[in-house]
Amino acid sequence: MSSPADLADFPVVITLPVLWGDQDAFGHVNNTVPIRWFESARIAYIETPEIAELLKREKVGPILAAIACNYRRQITYPDTVSIGARVTRLGGASLTMVHKVWSEQQRAIVADGESTIVIFDYAAQRPTRISDPLRTAMAKLEGGRLER
Amino acid sequence: MSSPADLADFPVVITLPVLWGDQDAFGHVNNTVPIRWFESARIAYIETPEIAELLKREKVGPILAAIACNYRRQITYPDTVSIGARVTRLGGASLTMVHKVWSEQQRAIVADGESTIVIFDYAAQRPTRISDPLRTAMAKLEGGRLER
Amino acid sequence: MSSPADLADFPVVITLPVLWGDQDAFGHVNNTVPIRWFESARIAYIETPEIAELLKREKVGPILAAIACNYRRQITYPDTVSIGARVTRLGGASLTMVHKVWSEQQRAIVADGESTIVIFDYAAQRPTRISDPLRTAMAKLEGGRLER
Amino acid sequence: MSSPADLADFPVVITLPVLWGDQDAFGHVNNTVPIRWFESARIAYIETPEIAELLKREKVGPILAAIACNYRRQITYPDTVSIGARVTRLGGASLTMVHKVWSEQQRAIVADGESTIVIFDYAAQRPTRISDPLRTAMAKLEGGRLER
Repeated sequence: MSSPADLADFPVVITLPVLWGDQDAFGHVNNTVPIRWFESARIAYIETPEIAELLKREKVGPILAAIACNYRRQITYPDTVSIGARVTRLGGASLTMVHKVWSEQQRAIVADGESTIVIFDYAAQRPTRISDPLRTAMAKLEGGRLER
Repeated sequence: MSSPADLADFPVVITLPVLWGDQDAFGHVNNTVPIRWFESARIAYIETPEIAELLKREKVGPILAAIACNYRRQITYPDTVSIGARVTRLGGASLTMVHKVWSEQQRAIVADGESTIVIFDYAAQRPTRISDPLRTAMAKLEGGRLER
Repeated sequence: MSSPADLADFPVVITLPVLWGDQDAFGHVNNTVPIRWFESARIAYIETPEIAELLKREKVGPILAAIACNYRRQITYPDTVSIGARVTRLGGASLTMVHKVWSEQQRAIVADGESTIVIFDYAAQRPTRISDPLRTAMAKLEGGRLER
Repeated sequence: MSSPADLADFPVVITLPVLWGDQDAFGHVNNTVPIRWFESARIAYIETPEIAELLKREKVGPILAAIACNYRRQITYPDTVSIGARVTRLGGASLTMVHKVWSEQQRAIVADGESTIVIFDYAAQRPTRISDPLRTAMAKLEGGRLER
């Protein structure tokens, strides 16, 4: 499925149905659901082939340090949403990933936010500097908009 | 149940068990779960008798505009957590509620964050100024630390 | 998406992605997830145009009385599943809907089960006899395999 | 917390709050929630000291093969529920665990059901006969009502 124009800047976009069970007692999508969508987009990003291969080879992995979400519009069932993920900042051991949720019914961004991710060395059991190959792979995925 | 010292400043504290099913494939509590805990604490706050009565009388209600969460430590099963909610800012039509999650196992704050809440007039179908009685009720609950 | 042969008998089939977050600490899809999939298929069935129209006109609705699920194989991430729903029994006020979950990765039925649904009259606040038009609509959807 | 009389026969009883977020768009507790409660009670049962010790020593574990739930009454927020678990049948490699959910608000059983559990040998990667020590431990927990 092609991405809506609002997600044109996002190298990774996933598309998910809104489920009836995503609604809460207010009759719209519960606030935890976009957080789950962000998670799915985050995982899709780090599962892109080159990044997945590097994380595996380096025996490091992402740990979620913080999340933020703006609920811009009420989301209702039925609908289909597209969720974009892109990396906008590479720090020493952490990075910022931005998310936008686009609703097919509303033809608009209905939520956005960001994840702060720490790269963790499982052997050493502590955060570790993001390697140069990982920086290069993410910069390539982001089409040069990302400062390595 | 008495609150831990770290939550002494919070007028509303709820205590919940960590469920086995709160864990994800990493074997610790999934990132959506503290967001659900924040929701439960938020609801407990607005269900305190005076605030619940005012919201009902004024035919207004809270809508979640934004959420942020810092995952400070991995949370594991089994555990029992206490979640505090307090209002730290009253704007025109919006307010900020701060949350902290205290783990009984770790004897520490394991997550914190905040909710931005808009007061919504259901009849007019739009945000509305927080009424003076609501401001007074929240200031009273916060023991005078809150600017009305 | 065309249905797999194992779901050929099902008039309603929905297709959903398995999410990373559907996994639990055992590293496979949690047992509550197929129950959520059954719900989504059940809703899709009663939202087929003719049935939705009749339920609305008669001011009646389905209430879930019982559910059963057989977990035939472990379901893992990533995968895409197709869930079928068909009505196999029409009682006085209740009906039985059968579900099967087909995994694209495993090319096999990974779970099946059934829902017992009671038709509820909201005005009278009690179960009500399934109307003849509803029986006819369901029998039509089921291609004559269903005893009216 | 003492168990209600309706759960007197259950050797394991857990007590959980109904969360606001457990509700769905119908304004009552969603059908997946009692399934999660059953899971929590099931885990509590197999975590009783003697059984947990035996499972660990024998390097075997429980796998859920089937679940069934009867939704006897609508469950609403707020409420506190107690969930009982007891083993009623020991087969060769499988056992049946029965669950009842008692509501404090309604002073009644609001849901019941059962889990079919298979004992799995992780080394051999297949179901295995329930050992005599496990049979004895469960029979002891069930106070002799259970055929070893």
